[in-house]
Amino acid sequence: MRLSRFFLPILKENPKEAEIVSHRLMLRAGMMRQEAAGIYAWLPLGFRVLKKIEQIVREEQDRAGALELLMPTLQLADLWRESGRYDAYGPEMLRILDRHKRELLYGPTNEEMITEIFRSYVKSYKNLPLNLYHIQWKFRDEQRPRFGVMRGREFLMKDAYSFDLDEAGARRSYNKMFVAYLRTFARMGLKAIPMRAETGPIGGDLSHEFIVLAETGESGVFCDKDVLDLPIPPDDVDYDGDLNPIIKQWTSLYAATEDVHDAARFESEVPAEKRVNTRGIEVGQIFYFGTKYSDSMKALVAGPDGVDVPIHGGSYGVGVSRLVGAIIEACHDDAGIKWPEAVAPFRAAILNLKQGDAAVDGACEKLYRELTAKGVDVLYDDTDQRAGAKFAAADLIGIPWQILVGPKGLADGKVEVKRRSDGSRENMSPADVVAKLAG
Amino acid sequence: MRLSRFFLPILKENPKEAEIVSHRLMLRAGMMRQEAAGIYAWLPLGFRVLKKIEQIVREEQDRAGALELLMPTLQLADLWRESGRYDAYGPEMLRILDRHKRELLYGPTNEEMITEIFRSYVKSYKNLPLNLYHIQWKFRDEQRPRFGVMRGREFLMKDAYSFDLDEAGARRSYNKMFVAYLRTFARMGLKAIPMRAETGPIGGDLSHEFIVLAETGESGVFCDKDVLDLPIPPDDVDYDGDLNPIIKQWTSLYAATEDVHDAARFESEVPAEKRVNTRGIEVGQIFYFGTKYSDSMKALVAGPDGVDVPIHGGSYGVGVSRLVGAIIEACHDDAGIKWPEAVAPFRAAILNLKQGDAAVDGACEKLYRELTAKGVDVLYDDTDQRAGAKFAAADLIGIPWQILVGPKGLADGKVEVKRRSDGSRENMSPADVVAKLAG
Repeated sequence: MRLSRFFLPILKENPKEAEIVSHRLMLRAGMMRQEAAGIYAWLPLGFRVLKKIEQIVREEQDRAGALELLMPTLQLADLWRESGRYDAYGPEMLRILDRHKRELLYGPTNEEMITEIFRSYVKSYKNLPLNLYHIQWKFRDEQRPRFGVMRGREFLMKDAYSFDLDEAGARRSYNKMFVAYLRTFARMGLKAIPMRAETGPIGGDLSHEFIVLAETGESGVFCDKDVLDLPIPPDDVDYDGDLNPIIKQWTSLYAATEDVHDAARFESEVPAEKRVNTRGIEVGQIFYFGTKYSDSMKALVAGPDGVDVPIHGGSYGVGVSRLVGAIIEACHDDAGIKWPEAVAPFRAAILNLKQGDAAVDGACEKLYRELTAKGVDVLYDDTDQRAGAKFAAADLIGIPWQILVGPKGLADGKVEVKRRSDGSRENMSPADVVAKLAG
Repeated sequence: MRLSRFFLPILKENPKEAEIVSHRLMLRAGMMRQEAAGIYAWLPLGFRVLKKIEQIVREEQDRAGALELLMPTLQLADLWRESGRYDAYGPEMLRILDRHKRELLYGPTNEEMITEIFRSYVKSYKNLPLNLYHIQWKFRDEQRPRFGVMRGREFLMKDAYSFDLDEAGARRSYNKMFVAYLRTFARMGLKAIPMRAETGPIGGDLSHEFIVLAETGESGVFCDKDVLDLPIPPDDVDYDGDLNPIIKQWTSLYAATEDVHDAARFESEVPAEKRVNTRGIEVGQIFYFGTKYSDSMKALVAGPDGVDVPIHGGSYGVGVSRLVGAIIEACHDDAGIKWPEAVAPFRAAILNLKQGDAAVDGACEKLYRELTAKGVDVLYDDTDQRAGAKFAAADLIGIPWQILVGPKGLADGKVEVKRRSDGSRENMSPADVVAKLAG
């Protein structure tokens, strides 16, 4: 992509309304724009990151055997009356009347609707287990939306729903999502630690939050240092096999948010030199809630003995739009964002340091053409800005690899490659750059 | 994908509420489920088609130089008061009050919001031309939603918005979208003919509808037979070059919907043997509306002489969810859907005609493994249904290639490959099947 043809409205000033660094950097880097309190438009740079995160979430859900569908944003109020949550949900639910005065709502979550879909079609235990997910916009009418996409009102969430004949099956489904979440966040370059959690309005008696460690996080976190170095399950993890060893490994070391922190247990279980007290951001939560929805909504299947029983359910959320902010909170410095490669809007940026110089222009065009042909997603800064402004913009928007092309280096047949994550720099020939980044 | 692990709730009976064939087939094939009047959940099979259509639309927008972003579903009413459309839009607009009694609406289209985004950042003609698009759910509160996804209330649309300094530039932007649309629909296996159209509530003085020819279409269509065989612009069409010859070629032959049909002109311009009178479905519409929104909303840029002028705009819609229905209307027979390969939910289906027979099971598993490894999207019917039921299901859901694996054929080292589009059949070795489909 040529920057001269891209839409990247970088702000020079720090926006006053932004209280936290991810909000500030997303506005400054031209990633998004607020359209109403807690409602954002994703500008092209931000949209690219959102799509990359969404795709990683999708791939790992698919790998774990979940099936993607797509439920609508609007739901019938009557569906929520069946579960008893319509009145219980309170003012965070956005309630809507259509032209015929039918009561709708903008879905904040989908337990009711997916249960209604399930019960309409599935009648036998033979069709279980089943895990259905979608990635769709949700709405929660927060009293005081803030922190940009970290606590917006209209937000993108992946929510999966599992259906099993009994608790043992439901725990297997729960474990699959637990493992899928470990892989999902690791692929985004994040340390996300599963922590035992309260179940809140979803209900049930088993839940884990996945917490990304970031010094600027919303809540305090206490854990055993060793939990930070546990191995992530590999690409070929067998989801049909026994996942208990992985779950046990990840849940036997102390890890808790301040809400449920037990100082006495922490001190007795964790040696002093291994006690970590930092901050974190919740990016996912998984729930096992048994028959809470299948009882009230009559989602029954015939068991092997022919008797109808309510299914055992779980739900599994990932905050897709929130992750954009969470990754920035975890990956930035004073100059701007430092995208992990897997979610970067572009893998590399070419900075033409003397636009209009025939040799420099020619070298940049050639690099751009060759990298693009090799499938490297590259942003070519071909604008007439000064070199200093180009450096600052590239650092701000956080592209992992910057290729600096100027007349001096070119005289020696070299360009400079800067790695955004650690600031390291290396001179190399354009051909070597192509080989390095396309490799 | 193994059918035993997929979620494909095929209906045996024809649903009474479905008045047209695409609605009936989408329900019967387990592609979607109605959640409220005109509001649908996309079940896994339907979701796959929706995503393929969306991706083709995206690739062709990108190729034409449009930039993708994503605007929210909800908008502030005040934005629409600026353009004067808030009161004018009528009861089709879904109006919403949030917890603080702020007036929101569920966007039916985005001219106002994109104009607000544009004017916030772009101040000079040097940043033009610009074409921004998104693919997002919209809502129109139809008085009487019907025909399934063909006239739903919550629907997925691609809408692009172009910004130019003057009318000449805006016409170039219009022509780019015209060409992109020709390519988009052709890639989906459709004959979509551009026809001069009324501009309606969007406004402006130039518009074309793209009409898919289908005998079951919603409106009558009159055209010159030769328009059906015009060449589609190739992959490497130069969007920066002169597109006028393509536009002229496509607009000089007679083609009109019954709304604007001129019988006298039709008879004088088109020889009797070339007069085609059939039916069609609108799947896209493009508009040039000049300064309609930039005047009222003050979207001004400084021209080369430093004087601020309102930009010239256009908007360009594709009905992404509607296309799923339109393609079925154009591609089906009495047995079910016949998906064009580019949008098929799976490219091939393996039908195990004797589940439990070791040789047949083994051959199916091997084919499934090899095709999957070669990147062929394949649905393996490994259920214990009778062969007849498997044939009927495969025809109903319309997978382009059916691979029938039974004991008789295998005794000769052969499987049968049936092409859904024309019903042709061929016996070949499993290795040849893999070579054919992976080629």
